[in-house]
Amino acid sequence: MQNLNELFTPCLIVEKSKLINNIERLSSRIFKEKTKFRPHLKTAKCKKITEIFTKYFGSRAMVSTIEEIEQLKDCGITDFLYSVAIVPNKLKRIASCLSDNCQVTVSIDHISIANELVNFCKVEGCKISAVIELDFDGHRSGVRPNAEKQLIEIGKCLSDAGLFRGVMSHAGASYNLSNNQDLLKCAKNEAEQTLEAVRILKNASLSCNLVTIGSTPTVLTNYNNDAINELRAGVFVFFDLVQTGIGICNIEDIALSVLTSVISVNREIDAIIVDAGWMALSRDRGTSSQKTDFGYGQVCLEDGTIIEDVIVTGVQQEHGIIQVRKGSEALLPNIKPGDMLRILPNHACATAAAHDRYYVNDKITGEIEVWDKFNGW
Amino acid sequence: MQNLNELFTPCLIVEKSKLINNIERLSSRIFKEKTKFRPHLKTAKCKKITEIFTKYFGSRAMVSTIEEIEQLKDCGITDFLYSVAIVPNKLKRIASCLSDNCQVTVSIDHISIANELVNFCKVEGCKISAVIELDFDGHRSGVRPNAEKQLIEIGKCLSDAGLFRGVMSHAGASYNLSNNQDLLKCAKNEAEQTLEAVRILKNASLSCNLVTIGSTPTVLTNYNNDAINELRAGVFVFFDLVQTGIGICNIEDIALSVLTSVISVNREIDAIIVDAGWMALSRDRGTSSQKTDFGYGQVCLEDGTIIEDVIVTGVQQEHGIIQVRKGSEALLPNIKPGDMLRILPNHACATAAAHDRYYVNDKITGEIEVWDKFNGW
Repeated sequence: MQNLNELFTPCLIVEKSKLINNIERLSSRIFKEKTKFRPHLKTAKCKKITEIFTKYFGSRAMVSTIEEIEQLKDCGITDFLYSVAIVPNKLKRIASCLSDNCQVTVSIDHISIANELVNFCKVEGCKISAVIELDFDGHRSGVRPNAEKQLIEIGKCLSDAGLFRGVMSHAGASYNLSNNQDLLKCAKNEAEQTLEAVRILKNASLSCNLVTIGSTPTVLTNYNNDAINELRAGVFVFFDLVQTGIGICNIEDIALSVLTSVISVNREIDAIIVDAGWMALSRDRGTSSQKTDFGYGQVCLEDGTIIEDVIVTGVQQEHGIIQVRKGSEALLPNIKPGDMLRILPNHACATAAAHDRYYVNDKITGEIEVWDKFNGW
Repeated sequence: MQNLNELFTPCLIVEKSKLINNIERLSSRIFKEKTKFRPHLKTAKCKKITEIFTKYFGSRAMVSTIEEIEQLKDCGITDFLYSVAIVPNKLKRIASCLSDNCQVTVSIDHISIANELVNFCKVEGCKISAVIELDFDGHRSGVRPNAEKQLIEIGKCLSDAGLFRGVMSHAGASYNLSNNQDLLKCAKNEAEQTLEAVRILKNASLSCNLVTIGSTPTVLTNYNNDAINELRAGVFVFFDLVQTGIGICNIEDIALSVLTSVISVNREIDAIIVDAGWMALSRDRGTSSQKTDFGYGQVCLEDGTIIEDVIVTGVQQEHGIIQVRKGSEALLPNIKPGDMLRILPNHACATAAAHDRYYVNDKITGEIEVWDKFNGW
């Protein structure tokens, strides 16, 4: 295929050169710091993109579902870290993924689960190693980095069984920031709190081979700490409007968009109606708390040219309402039913989740490739 | 399978008896009025449920995607109405669905598209009939019901080619109401405005064989108008918290829920963390503008018992945060990692869209059946 207008809308477009630029930007940052990098596969959920990751970053990856391990274990990844605190009834499926070329590490924040993991591995004769999940802003699961008793109890239980690998934390709070100074502070805090837990464990003779932290905004700041031996990020691969608002990318860096057809023009409310509703865009409103609110997405012409101040102001299941941002003097593009537009997403993970394939626009070859993706758990 | 706790979480549960009750409730209302009913397939997107619909309602159905026609045309439906205003580049795929047992009607709100449809059918030698979409609250696509010139122009163009079928409207505004009096008014307005368009067309010798209106809230009020020959509704099949807030169902009628595992208990913020985030629940916040805000969903025990005032207060991709509703004296259930809970959704269509199958809990046989569903366009 060579033309976007041959595609059936709504569908997901990836600009290949932007995708590669985003990966190279992260790669150059990481190699400079001589720290290992573990990309999160939950954003793209795609074999082709995972294979590109292995070329740049090697054999480590983070996942948020076991489905990601099962689907992507033949793409060159041999070391999976499963980010969602494990529960016992998921261990059997993880065990069936294990091989010489597929090691899985889970995350744990409670001694009862550590005990169950140890017991499971003994009974099944398998090895599923674990990190302790840290929670340094008290927002969800995880052990507090200064919770000495809990850390040592879990660490010792895992270590005695040969399953202890280290600690993991995630600066989720970085998503609420909007300038480099705050991001540096957040990155520093993430690293230092994590290292406090590492010290506590070390004092109890529990050594952390893996000290893994990160989020796209903190990884891409200039903060560096040699005692951290692994960084993680996910959404950097596509970027999105939320990351633009945080200030960690430009709107032109966003590699993902939804191609949509104009289905009606409503002059009464000065709106263009398109066939991309919340099914295709998601209901994510991540930019609503940022300085610039993009509604449900920024509107572009079919070729990707941004139409300043024209956004998706409303969505229904299969309808998107496009209007000029309130207070702006901008005009709607002169467009008619059947024409196509593109929408840049608030949150790439959420928009990608609504689709089962990427149409990858390679401007060098002039070809549009189809890269399958998947969803589910 | 016989036990919910054998299921891999997060996943979708349908209570079969509630599903059937919801369908029978609508069915008894419709047969009383001697009006045809056209269920919307976009909510469930499921062969098994479509086959049940054909038993109760016959061979008509509404769809929001062409994928729904392709997937469901062998379930007993022979008369599909495609709800999203058609654009020319979708006609080819529709044409390839047509057969003696599969008739497709599209909706149109612009003369240029009517001309293109007529031309397409002539060139391809096929028949895709059309209704004129009416917009009586000026909110998205559609022709105003009193826009005489437009109505007659489109109607005549279609009629001359033997493709004109009638008019279609949808009382989207009914979703913002919360009492029966307003719903009755809304249903009456929907019918009367639609009939105004029918009169205008009739005066121009354009006869509407199909006069189709409806939304779950307006169809389930007691309003009746014999001049309307078809009603439509979709979400009635599962119901959800938004429909509870509108007052058209009880919370006990909701047939759909997400089964989730507790992955952590955070005493610091009095929260239960579960493995159902926005990926499994959707980001729909439909109840946020209603009298009772359910956050991202109402929490129930594994057996479906509602835990009063315990709701999902936050979601990340694969994490849900469960807390007591602000200001309530209720307590969190005494629960530990590995235990299961269920979440009732704000908006059934959005939550169902995140999954690829239903686990149907049949309390009579004691079995859990798997009913596949699909997504995409």
